[in-house]
Amino acid sequence: MSIANEMLELASQARVASRIIATLSSGVKNELLLKMAAQVEASAKRLQQANLLDLQVGRDRGMAAAMLDRLELSDQVIAAMAAGLREVAALPDPVGEVTGMWLRPNGIRVGRQRIPLGVIGIIYESRPNVTADAAGLCLKSGNAVILRGGSEAIHSNRAIGEVLQQAITAMGLPAEVLQVVTTSERSAVTELLKLEEQIDLIIPRGGEGLIRFVSENSRIPVIKHYKGVCHTYVDADADFEMAERICLNEKVQRPGVCNSLETLLVHRAAAPVFLPQIAAAMTKAGVELRGCAVSRSLVPEMSVASEEDWAAEYLDLILAVRVVDDFEGARDHINRYCSLHTETIVTRDYAMSQRFLREINSSVVMVNASSRFSDGGQLGLGAEIGISTSKLHSFGPMGLEDLTTRKFIVLGDGQIRE
Amino acid sequence: MSIANEMLELASQARVASRIIATLSSGVKNELLLKMAAQVEASAKRLQQANLLDLQVGRDRGMAAAMLDRLELSDQVIAAMAAGLREVAALPDPVGEVTGMWLRPNGIRVGRQRIPLGVIGIIYESRPNVTADAAGLCLKSGNAVILRGGSEAIHSNRAIGEVLQQAITAMGLPAEVLQVVTTSERSAVTELLKLEEQIDLIIPRGGEGLIRFVSENSRIPVIKHYKGVCHTYVDADADFEMAERICLNEKVQRPGVCNSLETLLVHRAAAPVFLPQIAAAMTKAGVELRGCAVSRSLVPEMSVASEEDWAAEYLDLILAVRVVDDFEGARDHINRYCSLHTETIVTRDYAMSQRFLREINSSVVMVNASSRFSDGGQLGLGAEIGISTSKLHSFGPMGLEDLTTRKFIVLGDGQIRE
Repeated sequence: MSIANEMLELASQARVASRIIATLSSGVKNELLLKMAAQVEASAKRLQQANLLDLQVGRDRGMAAAMLDRLELSDQVIAAMAAGLREVAALPDPVGEVTGMWLRPNGIRVGRQRIPLGVIGIIYESRPNVTADAAGLCLKSGNAVILRGGSEAIHSNRAIGEVLQQAITAMGLPAEVLQVVTTSERSAVTELLKLEEQIDLIIPRGGEGLIRFVSENSRIPVIKHYKGVCHTYVDADADFEMAERICLNEKVQRPGVCNSLETLLVHRAAAPVFLPQIAAAMTKAGVELRGCAVSRSLVPEMSVASEEDWAAEYLDLILAVRVVDDFEGARDHINRYCSLHTETIVTRDYAMSQRFLREINSSVVMVNASSRFSDGGQLGLGAEIGISTSKLHSFGPMGLEDLTTRKFIVLGDGQIRE
Repeated sequence: MSIANEMLELASQARVASRIIATLSSGVKNELLLKMAAQVEASAKRLQQANLLDLQVGRDRGMAAAMLDRLELSDQVIAAMAAGLREVAALPDPVGEVTGMWLRPNGIRVGRQRIPLGVIGIIYESRPNVTADAAGLCLKSGNAVILRGGSEAIHSNRAIGEVLQQAITAMGLPAEVLQVVTTSERSAVTELLKLEEQIDLIIPRGGEGLIRFVSENSRIPVIKHYKGVCHTYVDADADFEMAERICLNEKVQRPGVCNSLETLLVHRAAAPVFLPQIAAAMTKAGVELRGCAVSRSLVPEMSVASEEDWAAEYLDLILAVRVVDDFEGARDHINRYCSLHTETIVTRDYAMSQRFLREINSSVVMVNASSRFSDGGQLGLGAEIGISTSKLHSFGPMGLEDLTTRKFIVLGDGQIRE
């Protein structure tokens, strides 16, 4: 069978199975996730044996230690997979919720009710535990899922898929609600991305290259998230102690992630006092500062920020710094360079906080809190399937609700249109 | 300037202008729409002069009378354009609504707030009044809009665009919040569809060919709606008089539209009584019936339905009829052939109504009401920008709210992540 036909068959089976999982009660879906967790724990040895094959290939190919580390299914990673499935089982089920119901003059009642999206394709790299995490979220929200991990984790992903399918069939459900694409053919992804009749949404998880490839080759809607160039604007009227605490947390607590701070904007009235203060704190924390001319006149130790720095996602202990004349200066800089991820204002000025909330339309906009909270778990979504920095169909961190859509329901007693 | 550069410049200007319209208050946007309505009325003569050029070209090219009719900006059409703008001005503004706000254990408050999508591209055929209707909905929901009508209406669309822009600039707003693409170059559409950084959503309005072309060539999310193959299932326990009334309304009241009935499914216990009854009524109304073998054994006058009939969107006085064994038979037929548009059950059986609402996941699911209500205006959305039969980002008829997305807002008092 050609890869194209193989993918079509797999996706068609997912479509059929999706209709079954879509109608399961929350209780049954929760039981399924708990069974999956137990099966993962009971199969630890089997998973680790499969994982050894991937690790061996990785070592033979000279894979970097950090990559090997991400690839490894250690005891802790397996425990975390099981714990993750149990956490998702405990979350509220979005399916069935009626988000509004109104009466029309002719007596029909009209509502919008949450339903699963249908079939979701996840295309990811490296970490094999994504297989279980993503599967848990998709199944809990009533969707069938097709998982395509990287070739470097193919043995691990196949084994995890088989283990999870054991739990699924043990519940009398069709195994095809969860399928792992295990062919090593690279064309499998391009073929999957054409199946707009069978697959409703594609979520790529990985580097910018993977996301661009998927986005440019897909006929199916794709959740996009290229990068996080997060800004914090310290207003004239900020509490400088709070601003320092927040900025440090944003830059230093975990610099390699997308919700860390990349550019600090400071109101010119705050700069003479705040810039030397934050520069000293950042330098002490090992952060390299790259500033505009005004910033460097106040803190001469800073190196010069170039045009590329304003657009940079460093993911490292480097921070771009710019002094702006006023709110409009900060807003215009953000509009020009931001990635629609997370923007923060630190201020004691009520009117400024409201303008920032109103005029900045990134996916997460914060007042007086660290950008590091821009994460599904921290925001209270329970768990995160991904983050979207394009405005459809969700914007920002995505939880279970974002794996659903809404249908209209109409309840009448015989009304016809005149 | 090349078409590619021209479209890039136009879309980039729309992006800049979108940030201004996004922050306008509802009051200012309503005033704008009322001004646009007045300007349309005041410019009736100018619009009709431009329209004459299109009509002349159409006649010279031998355009069919029905097409010429759709193209004409009669006094009534112009009055309807103005009235439509005033209706949209009167609708509630979705922008700014906070659809939920919760407190996290660390004291931050997290909410989701509606914001405009940004820049919306509308690609449409024939009727030039779409230019004003779509512009009104996009501007009211805080979006900039790029309009690309068919070449057959190019003079009319250009004139409508200029008239609307007069109202916009008279309010001191940038004209680029509303732009009509007036080049006759066909490549303009393909170039627009590549601009994923500048345009957030594409809504094609027209035939299946146009929608497929846009969908297959776009890197920007597209609202898809290929066709409406609507089913009504008459249950064993239906009120046959109500069922007859509903089915006739669905099929006959306006057969050429997407929410009209195409396939009637009848429970086998209902068929011996109901089928002869509905067949007589349909035949009297001029409807041709095409039935399955069981249907034809009860109503021999029916012609034979082939496999193509089950998938057909007739848009005409033709109806496919099938007798099913039970609810599952109806559900499985619908799952196989439906276009996710509108499905209806007629029943007095409470449990059956609930199963239908639960197990049928089309964009509109109805109990005891005519499918002809499946329309933004009838469902109470106020006005309709289009209909989506794909599940992202909206599903079903789309109103103002569906032209928005939601950002997260986070209100803290200095919290950092531990």
